Amino acid sequence: MRGEFSLIERFLSFFPRARVPVGPGDDCAVLAPTRGALCVTTDAVVENVHFTREAFSAEDIGHKALAVNLSDLAAMGSTPRWFVCALALPKDFPERELRGLARGMSALAREHRIALVGGNFTSAHELSITITAAGELQGPALTRSGGRPGHLLYMSGELGDARLGLIHLQSGKRRSPAILRQRRPIPRVALGRLASRFASAGMDISDGLAQDLGHLCEASGVGAEVELAHLPLSPAVRVALGAERALAGGEDYELLLAIPPERAKAFERACARAGQRVTRIGRLTRGRRRVLRDPEGRLVTPPPGFDHFTRGRPVD
Amino acid sequence: MRGEFSLIERFLSFFPRARVPVGPGDDCAVLAPTRGALCVTTDAVVENVHFTREAFSAEDIGHKALAVNLSDLAAMGSTPRWFVCALALPKDFPERELRGLARGMSALAREHRIALVGGNFTSAHELSITITAAGELQGPALTRSGGRPGHLLYMSGELGDARLGLIHLQSGKRRSPAILRQRRPIPRVALGRLASRFASAGMDISDGLAQDLGHLCEASGVGAEVELAHLPLSPAVRVALGAERALAGGEDYELLLAIPPERAKAFERACARAGQRVTRIGRLTRGRRRVLRDPEGRLVTPPPGFDHFTRGRPVD
Repeated sequence: MRGEFSLIERFLSFFPRARVPVGPGDDCAVLAPTRGALCVTTDAVVENVHFTREAFSAEDIGHKALAVNLSDLAAMGSTPRWFVCALALPKDFPERELRGLARGMSALAREHRIALVGGNFTSAHELSITITAAGELQGPALTRSGGRPGHLLYMSGELGDARLGLIHLQSGKRRSPAILRQRRPIPRVALGRLASRFASAGMDISDGLAQDLGHLCEASGVGAEVELAHLPLSPAVRVALGAERALAGGEDYELLLAIPPERAKAFERACARAGQRVTRIGRLTRGRRRVLRDPEGRLVTPPPGFDHFTRGRPVD
Repeated sequence: MRGEFSLIERFLSFFPRARVPVGPGDDCAVLAPTRGALCVTTDAVVENVHFTREAFSAEDIGHKALAVNLSDLAAMGSTPRWFVCALALPKDFPERELRGLARGMSALAREHRIALVGGNFTSAHELSITITAAGELQGPALTRSGGRPGHLLYMSGELGDARLGLIHLQSGKRRSPAILRQRRPIPRVALGRLASRFASAGMDISDGLAQDLGHLCEASGVGAEVELAHLPLSPAVRVALGAERALAGGEDYELLLAIPPERAKAFERACARAGQRVTRIGRLTRGRRRVLRDPEGRLVTPPPGFDHFTRGRPVD
């Protein structure tokens, strides 16, 4: 057993043994049928697109690769169950770094009790990690399409930190709270489950609030009004980016939620009890227009969103 | 809607709409709970590792990316149900080629009635496709670990064609039956389902029979004896490679099966009725030794298997 097979074994040794009928090592993993419906997502992080090996430790990369998938599971209101991990590694990739990837990924996997049930290694010129993750639903899925005019818009956490972190990294900084948010996004799994009891629509903010709100509005067939003054911005983001640039920043991995107004009080109370920070940022409207209002109530044009293909590589 | 989003829509338009609670376009796909257990596999094809864009058409690449995953589902005896597809595309990847990928992949998906339920696009320097596929089991899974001494070894199809196809491509040839087997491997889905009613162990032959038989033997805690004279070799492989080199050739994606001797007749009859070609090539033995016998009954040392990390890039 050498080459690909021993790499797989070393990688797996960082994860708890999955409690499933057949785990890693056969042609497929075998998973017992679930009671609830399954939510499935696949997402990749690629060297020089989503991270550089100068600015990210191997642990950061392993964390981020899983976190972006957990964020999608959270956005549907599902409970993480299992994932498979396909690694494409440069030929000279050091084993020390491979252990780092596994450590970063397994720490987050343990936190969310999601089992690694299978994987694949290939060689490649650039490092990339493609994860497919599955979560189980207890109730109906929290989709993007259930928003109705008048429903209130909430988001978790703060906006723009990941974008500011990227700017810090590009300017040569190596340590700041914003850089931590860029390297170690926090998937809002508990909030997603809680929100699924109240929300009419939800999604995660991966491409920037401006663009992702557009997706939610299109899926729900509604417009939206966002109050710039209500956006949750850290003092650092407020100074360095301002609200309008924070709106366009990607990779926050916060949740965007639409809550029917009659459930808003109960939702806010449940969030407070659970220690989940959410902020009301606007509301859905009739028609298709998406508008931003500045603190004086004037309309502002939304900035373009973050898109890998049209905006280029964020870390180069 | 431009950039990543319109690429996804154009790609999806080649596939039938998945009949699932939530299909592509939300944060996750949502899949109704299954009756039987789920088999899950993930496998990637990477430019200059598993294919070159000179020697493979876009349709070939799309076919192969899905075929290697279907082969894993077949090896467990499961029925293909759904898959997700993560594409990493070079920035200048022509839309014509993207349509070719989708055509090759969707033709095979239709044949096996497997639904594309989600996907992801990222930019990258080299083209790669990572697919995660799931199949449903009607009965117990066909694992690698159930083989016992005395069980008979069978394999489907013919051995070594994919390796010969690679040699043909490397020598500048562009058309031969072997090249077709390299570009368009045939996942043995129907045979896998049939075999799961008879076999004690099974797997697909992706890394060469020599190496994969080793995995089956290790998982089952047995040895094996293979008769070189019984190996199913096409006349072209017999002349160009011979039995020993055919044993080391990867990417055949045939099935290797262990059948208890008392079920062998019934298995062979069922295969004949179903039009599935299988060949008895040896048997499992006590102990851990894996031996090859030449036509005169003499022992032959098995050649090393095919491993991306230790053997390097097959198409360069």
